[in-house]
Amino acid sequence: MPNLDMFFRPRSIAVIGASNKPLTIPYRIIQNLIDYGFRGPIYPVHPKEPFVKNLPAYRAVTDIPGPVDLAHIIVRRDLVPATIEQCAQKGVRGVVVNTSGFSETGPEGRELEDRIRDLGRKLGVRIFGPNCQGMMNTDPDVSLYSNFTFARIRPGHISILAQGGGVAEVLNSFLSESGIGIRMYASNGNACDVSIPEILAYWNEDPGTRVIVLHVESFADPKEFLDVVSRIDKPILGMKSGTSPEGARAVASHTGRLMAEDTLSDVLFDECNIVRFRTSQELCEAAVALASQPLPRGRRLGIVTNAGSPAILATDEAVAQGLEVRDPAEATQAKLREKLFATSSVHNPVDMMATATPENWATAVEAVMTDGSYDMVLASFITPFFVDCAGVARELVRLHEAHPELPFLVCLMTNPLWDETRKILERGGLPAYYFPEAAARAAAALARVAELKRRAPGAHPELAIDRAAAERALAGAPAGFLPGEATAALLRAYGIPLAAERWCATPAELIPAAKELGFPVVLKAHAPGWTHKTEAGAVAVGLADEAALRAAADRMAARLGAGVRWQVQEHVAGGTEVVVGTVRSGPLGAFIMFGLGGILVEAVRDVRFGLAPLTDAKAERLIDGLRHGELLRGFRGRPPVSRTALVDLLVRVSRLAADHPRIAELDLNPVLAFEDGGRTRAVDARIRLAE
Amino acid sequence: MPNLDMFFRPRSIAVIGASNKPLTIPYRIIQNLIDYGFRGPIYPVHPKEPFVKNLPAYRAVTDIPGPVDLAHIIVRRDLVPATIEQCAQKGVRGVVVNTSGFSETGPEGRELEDRIRDLGRKLGVRIFGPNCQGMMNTDPDVSLYSNFTFARIRPGHISILAQGGGVAEVLNSFLSESGIGIRMYASNGNACDVSIPEILAYWNEDPGTRVIVLHVESFADPKEFLDVVSRIDKPILGMKSGTSPEGARAVASHTGRLMAEDTLSDVLFDECNIVRFRTSQELCEAAVALASQPLPRGRRLGIVTNAGSPAILATDEAVAQGLEVRDPAEATQAKLREKLFATSSVHNPVDMMATATPENWATAVEAVMTDGSYDMVLASFITPFFVDCAGVARELVRLHEAHPELPFLVCLMTNPLWDETRKILERGGLPAYYFPEAAARAAAALARVAELKRRAPGAHPELAIDRAAAERALAGAPAGFLPGEATAALLRAYGIPLAAERWCATPAELIPAAKELGFPVVLKAHAPGWTHKTEAGAVAVGLADEAALRAAADRMAARLGAGVRWQVQEHVAGGTEVVVGTVRSGPLGAFIMFGLGGILVEAVRDVRFGLAPLTDAKAERLIDGLRHGELLRGFRGRPPVSRTALVDLLVRVSRLAADHPRIAELDLNPVLAFEDGGRTRAVDARIRLAE
Repeated sequence: MPNLDMFFRPRSIAVIGASNKPLTIPYRIIQNLIDYGFRGPIYPVHPKEPFVKNLPAYRAVTDIPGPVDLAHIIVRRDLVPATIEQCAQKGVRGVVVNTSGFSETGPEGRELEDRIRDLGRKLGVRIFGPNCQGMMNTDPDVSLYSNFTFARIRPGHISILAQGGGVAEVLNSFLSESGIGIRMYASNGNACDVSIPEILAYWNEDPGTRVIVLHVESFADPKEFLDVVSRIDKPILGMKSGTSPEGARAVASHTGRLMAEDTLSDVLFDECNIVRFRTSQELCEAAVALASQPLPRGRRLGIVTNAGSPAILATDEAVAQGLEVRDPAEATQAKLREKLFATSSVHNPVDMMATATPENWATAVEAVMTDGSYDMVLASFITPFFVDCAGVARELVRLHEAHPELPFLVCLMTNPLWDETRKILERGGLPAYYFPEAAARAAAALARVAELKRRAPGAHPELAIDRAAAERALAGAPAGFLPGEATAALLRAYGIPLAAERWCATPAELIPAAKELGFPVVLKAHAPGWTHKTEAGAVAVGLADEAALRAAADRMAARLGAGVRWQVQEHVAGGTEVVVGTVRSGPLGAFIMFGLGGILVEAVRDVRFGLAPLTDAKAERLIDGLRHGELLRGFRGRPPVSRTALVDLLVRVSRLAADHPRIAELDLNPVLAFEDGGRTRAVDARIRLAE
Repeated sequence: MPNLDMFFRPRSIAVIGASNKPLTIPYRIIQNLIDYGFRGPIYPVHPKEPFVKNLPAYRAVTDIPGPVDLAHIIVRRDLVPATIEQCAQKGVRGVVVNTSGFSETGPEGRELEDRIRDLGRKLGVRIFGPNCQGMMNTDPDVSLYSNFTFARIRPGHISILAQGGGVAEVLNSFLSESGIGIRMYASNGNACDVSIPEILAYWNEDPGTRVIVLHVESFADPKEFLDVVSRIDKPILGMKSGTSPEGARAVASHTGRLMAEDTLSDVLFDECNIVRFRTSQELCEAAVALASQPLPRGRRLGIVTNAGSPAILATDEAVAQGLEVRDPAEATQAKLREKLFATSSVHNPVDMMATATPENWATAVEAVMTDGSYDMVLASFITPFFVDCAGVARELVRLHEAHPELPFLVCLMTNPLWDETRKILERGGLPAYYFPEAAARAAAALARVAELKRRAPGAHPELAIDRAAAERALAGAPAGFLPGEATAALLRAYGIPLAAERWCATPAELIPAAKELGFPVVLKAHAPGWTHKTEAGAVAVGLADEAALRAAADRMAARLGAGVRWQVQEHVAGGTEVVVGTVRSGPLGAFIMFGLGGILVEAVRDVRFGLAPLTDAKAERLIDGLRHGELLRGFRGRPPVSRTALVDLLVRVSRLAADHPRIAELDLNPVLAFEDGGRTRAVDARIRLAE
């Protein structure tokens, strides 16, 4: 665990470049530190002024009498290196460089940034930023608001790390103003030294942090991210922005660093069990639930309401999010029928009508909580004038306390006149949403986090690999596309099933080869450097007999000339087309892709990515994660395909890509999958080698 | 235009069934009427009490001295008919039956509901409800809060009609509490007399209503809805709940009426130019923008920000919603470079950094507004301590007033300390959102509404139809599947292109027929009542020569016995598979469906529905509305298909279905579409006739 106490638990702080002008960043940092009640000395550093705000100022950080844990640096960018040297001399352990004008502005700034990073490392001074806001910690032992922004924070259990300072504030202000509060906060800008993964690892050890909210615009070091963040066990709710080309352009213009491939974010988030959200609002709504509620065992949601129509909105959204909204057990329904008004509906949602009393609510919620059919409960509560709403809220809190293992959310549809009702829920640790769909989405987010936490990492199955054959297939191969025969040999060495085939040097050998395989056959002509055989007229399919084969070979020979190798392949009929591929990209090595095949589905782009080598469990996730996976599980009279065979295939392909870094790209397209796993096979393969 | 003034502009109101118990519905109605300042007399009717609240009470409505425009009825359900009779006697023109226990509870209640509806019609008393809340009108000439609910309303320009009272309150409270306000409000419960379309038509004539927000759970009379609402010209933002089977069940349990087919909602909303929203929150966000902003000319959004990262979130969401976020013109960029800080980004978003002054904001927003490249502008504004934020807000309002034709939205990321800034925007008529994605979605909603308003209705093209041939094909056909030959004849009579074919009575005729068509051919055997020819082994495709045709015919004959008709069909190679179908359902007549074909795409279910007969413009919308329409526009080397030919096909099929109500279902599956429109043809057709 990295020790970042100097940033999040400093005992004294210097503000270098302090100013008495209220509308400046350093003045605001001092004001915020004072206003939020920082529990230690604050030392403004100013070349001339004797006081800044109400505090004595010092000419230089080295003039400060007591020890200094942390220093904010807000000086001209060219003065930053000298200032860091002075800090080191003073024994300051961490500096926050708020000053901008570094790598976000171009090569010159990048150079300066590298210089201060190296300087800090040499001198043993950790650097936060540059071009950053700072940090906060609501732990009352520290009460740190070391930042120039404006959110009115309050203590809570959610820690926020956002690369963009603006997004950090959107998340922070929302959580604090809605009464949920935050624990720690960091926006570390260009992050030349203290990195996002380092901060996350530090928070993982912070007892006050229950949930981490993470916003990233780019991954400075994907490998560090993977290695560090995949070990974190607290729930992380994540968001990656710059996912549209237009948005990515804006990221680039702002931070100077961009990993445009959104795939990388998906894979990294998945590997690190980070639940990804599409919008900041949905992220906040989910964080609110996670900050106070336990994780559910499953996806079954019970809804109790005093107004039918909003509960229907919640139901629609819950179902759209993959939750199950089933009726209570028969015994529960009987009990509810007996105890509630006759006009109530005892299905799910249990609908008691607007006149429901606190006692009605208690009866219904208790019945649903103890029914045994539900993993989560949602109270959809609209506040009529003629009901003791505070009493209802008290009953809800009581039942929440009596069943602490069951996640319980409230949709409170009201206005500030019922502030007392809201406060009772808030004090009782019950998250309250205004819009019914938001409450349902938050319930679904709880289920998603729980599922990620429960996921088995899986194992790397023992594979019988003919390593010698693999080495032979690759030996001496130049960069570019691997010849067809070597490609087949390499894949077979890894036990990857291919359509049966024979390789022939001359057309004369084709007929005997085809007879061995049995008609109909496919004929392919290969020459070095070809990649798109179909377009070159070098593939003939469905050759039903010798005459057809001979005619096809004659046509190709006439057209393609000498030097081709002939591949006669069994004609694989039927099956469901899928595609498997790998691509090596950046420090994470090979990515493996699995998806549905066929041109129409190409438009739908139903594919999933993972990192090679895959465990069996991860291979299963790629398969099960397709949006239209029903096509693999049997659909409209089509048989299901063998999942076991696909898992085996994916594990083998990913192992091949991981074992051989020279493989830049690999494509099995299509692979035909069958109900009988033994019949699953790739019918076309392509491997490109790097230099 | 229906005159519903008795409900929305009454001059006097009776509350029958009044009570002095504060926690009752009638007491609350009286209280709300008084609190909101109703400008007329309120007459409580109570059998015994001399006063209710501070008002003199009357024994019966007939005892009231002055005229009564409107009466709320809150008495036992069996007393409702007699009460309506008394109201008629008194000359009351409209009653709101708040009492529940009618059709929502079962057959007995349904009967009572029918009785009061008939009674009202006989006596000339309009009925609102039963089982309903009531209505509101914030017009200061009326100040009507004739409802027992709790929202704190304020005048605005959005009128809310929600079938479910709870959802009505969610929408109402949100809009009123967020400072936007409402104009009129209605939640008419079981709607036995005054209908949703009638209220919408009334509001269409209300000068104070700019936007209508509509929530429906079911369509009591889809025909009335279509006829009335399609004529309304104010923007309607709509929502249909009960879209999941689970949600639909809850609708059923609550209102007793359900049109489960979500397709109906889609088609009705589309025909009536209603913009459909998935969640109540998105609906509200869009309403906020529409209440104050003009409609944009297009989808081009310019963004100006003082914080990079939230603007990226807005950009990502805008692009996801189909907006265009392009850079400003070169001249604008040059101007911005000259006038803004050097660290600003002059692309889109224009990013001025947090220190931007009111002058910087004015420069940047003005430049974007006058650039000519934008149809809408979004100011993404985070409120730093060190900036004159109220001054920024004043500049934004000034520029909004100077460019009133340009929709202008603000994302104001702040907290209540900047209430003055918020109020300046509010008074200036600028909608302000908190989350960046919400602002972007609202901008997209403006574009959607504008596009619906601009849509051409299209024309019904003159079609050469051989009506006599069509009549012959249908003459005497029994209910059930129409024989293949008659199906082909009927389709051809409407000029619907089919694969070339010959019909034969005996196998002997097949070879000459196939020669006429040219090999390869398809052979199909037909017998009365068959529907799935492929599964019955009665189809053979790709018959390359006489031998193959003869063999296929022999196999079928052996298997199927006597009595079949033989269809020899040209083999249509290539093309893109689409499906066209019609189904007759309910009072709206025939629905026509268009979608992508093929089994994989069946899982994706990329289809669109319309009402028959289609205009050419509506046929185009079915085609252009597919999610994966790129497959028809040319994709990965595949040629585009002729849109003209598909439009013609859809228009003809829809005309056929509209002309012949006996056609219960029609399926052309697949239709093969080509770049050369003349080659587009259906290769399989099926028509089912009703009794």
